Amino acid sequence: MPTRFTAVYHVRSDASAIGQRARAIAVEQSVEMPVSAIEDAQILDDIVGKVEDITDIGSGVFAVRIGLAAATAGADPGQLINMLFGNSSLQDDVTLQDAEFPDALVAGYGGPHLGLEGLRERAGSGERALTCSTLKPQGMDHTHLGGLAERFARGGIDYIKDDHGLADQDYSPFDARVAAVAAALRQVEKETGHRACYVPSLTGDLGALRMQIAVARNSGLDTVMVQPMIMGLSNFHRIVRENPAVAFFAHPALAGASRIAPALLFGKIFRMLGADAIIFPNHGGRFGYSPQSCRAIADTGLGDWHGLKSAVPVPAGGMTTKRVPEMLDFYGSRVMLLIGGALLEARERLTQETAAFVGTVKGYRYG
Amino acid sequence: MPTRFTAVYHVRSDASAIGQRARAIAVEQSVEMPVSAIEDAQILDDIVGKVEDITDIGSGVFAVRIGLAAATAGADPGQLINMLFGNSSLQDDVTLQDAEFPDALVAGYGGPHLGLEGLRERAGSGERALTCSTLKPQGMDHTHLGGLAERFARGGIDYIKDDHGLADQDYSPFDARVAAVAAALRQVEKETGHRACYVPSLTGDLGALRMQIAVARNSGLDTVMVQPMIMGLSNFHRIVRENPAVAFFAHPALAGASRIAPALLFGKIFRMLGADAIIFPNHGGRFGYSPQSCRAIADTGLGDWHGLKSAVPVPAGGMTTKRVPEMLDFYGSRVMLLIGGALLEARERLTQETAAFVGTVKGYRYG
Repeated sequence: MPTRFTAVYHVRSDASAIGQRARAIAVEQSVEMPVSAIEDAQILDDIVGKVEDITDIGSGVFAVRIGLAAATAGADPGQLINMLFGNSSLQDDVTLQDAEFPDALVAGYGGPHLGLEGLRERAGSGERALTCSTLKPQGMDHTHLGGLAERFARGGIDYIKDDHGLADQDYSPFDARVAAVAAALRQVEKETGHRACYVPSLTGDLGALRMQIAVARNSGLDTVMVQPMIMGLSNFHRIVRENPAVAFFAHPALAGASRIAPALLFGKIFRMLGADAIIFPNHGGRFGYSPQSCRAIADTGLGDWHGLKSAVPVPAGGMTTKRVPEMLDFYGSRVMLLIGGALLEARERLTQETAAFVGTVKGYRYG
Repeated sequence: MPTRFTAVYHVRSDASAIGQRARAIAVEQSVEMPVSAIEDAQILDDIVGKVEDITDIGSGVFAVRIGLAAATAGADPGQLINMLFGNSSLQDDVTLQDAEFPDALVAGYGGPHLGLEGLRERAGSGERALTCSTLKPQGMDHTHLGGLAERFARGGIDYIKDDHGLADQDYSPFDARVAAVAAALRQVEKETGHRACYVPSLTGDLGALRMQIAVARNSGLDTVMVQPMIMGLSNFHRIVRENPAVAFFAHPALAGASRIAPALLFGKIFRMLGADAIIFPNHGGRFGYSPQSCRAIADTGLGDWHGLKSAVPVPAGGMTTKRVPEMLDFYGSRVMLLIGGALLEARERLTQETAAFVGTVKGYRYG
């Protein structure tokens, strides 16, 4: 019996055609050729995808469980997503809804270094929800971004991340930005005792990512943000493994989450590959995620799963301090609340508004 | 006046709401914060995305042209796709339909090393369409894959690529596979004078990609296949630039092309970053692409565009020898026809069926 992992697809189909369509997906995601042309019995038994179950879930959609040979994915995350959804991503009737992996596969990837508990410990936050804001807009030079960071920090925020649009642009080079923000936060710590944690965004090819993470480490930083779907899952996992003392925030850019269920991609796959925090669009903001979808992401990232550390959910995308109680009602304390633009709108009152946000989180009583 | 590139989105919207929605996308893909909170006039003028045009294209869909500052993308392909579609990929009402780039941006990326003409020259094919087949299924060991390659080569095929599922698996390690296939093809060349070109598939993080390409080069190979959306565009472009003598086939795995128009992603972006050949699902096969969509991919990849070499279209996905005349009617001679599984179904008659495919292509008279 070869080791298999299970992919769960949602497929739009007529009831009369779903059996054949399910077998076609099993072939597409494994041998990708007519099974009749395969002579080797071992390949037929061990490598060809197997339809394990088909369930009618209504509205013309079927949940199809397919067992895929773990040997086809090996130990490379890029090849894993290729086997889960490489070709089928091009077929409009299929979404990748979920996946189940054997213990050894998950253990081989290893999961988050710190997880929720580690991020809380670094922030000295105890059991409460964590707070986060964002440096933006892009186009601002590093000196001004350092100034923004200082004002967020004086408001008592836990984490300050780069906007995902900040890269290594001429108007704000990565090295200069990291130096300016790190210096600003050290100064605030010296004056107030509060140490906010800066989370710079890494971009580029693996070589650039490695240079940037070295710059961040040399400035005393221990947390970074990455965009796994843009850098490629293999490169994401590589820098996670190369930097065991670093925590990773995963940003969903380009995640095209309408075709891969976000609870799977963010809550399982990003976590398995090493995301300590998973940023996603909260319901009721600028993106169309439903409350159910957000709940599923949070539950999946935090839940007991193959012994991995938990990944803290970071609902974001147009949040405000006014929504804090409602969000804590919904998510509980195991969450990092991220408010970016709404705090920046306060302009000269940025520090006070940040303090109000932090105060609301600290003062909230969980029901 | 800052240099801008233009993104064209198709947006589902009410006519009354499209103006506001277009401005929201322009902000989402640039500064990602309330414009009212931006104090710096230069950022407002130079960095915030600008809605250049909104056209009602019917059925409740609007084409929205947005100018984005070239400075926000810099010279990194990952950051370019981030600025084009990073956050908007998470919004279900938007597809990225097209993009227009300034000369300097395209020239900086450089495009294909060889293009159609170079691939024809390597194959010694003259002006006819090129032929290609695929080594599969995965699960087969390298010795048997070498045997398959030999039989394809004896049939006179131009290019033999790996199935996109072949990686560096235990049952067929990359190094052993490349050695076995390269040796088999040298033997056929010695006996028959026909040199088929092997195109191994590279997978993994950038370090693994570099090692694999070195192995391929050491075996005398000069063409490889990559999966740009899995490896990350930045890493794709990096290995293209590091290997100026190598031709690159781009495979569409994970390209989720329903949200980014394939003519843009394959025909412009993959080409700009260095794809000499672009593989895509032909109409009437296992995938749902329309003839119009296939035509647009081919025309875009081949067309005059910023002085780049052309990228040869490779329509694929369930093609047969029977379809060759129809496909050549449709695409003309500037194409590479790829038949995989249908040839392998011939089993012991693989060489003869390959020869029949090649003969049909060579004998076709273009109208």
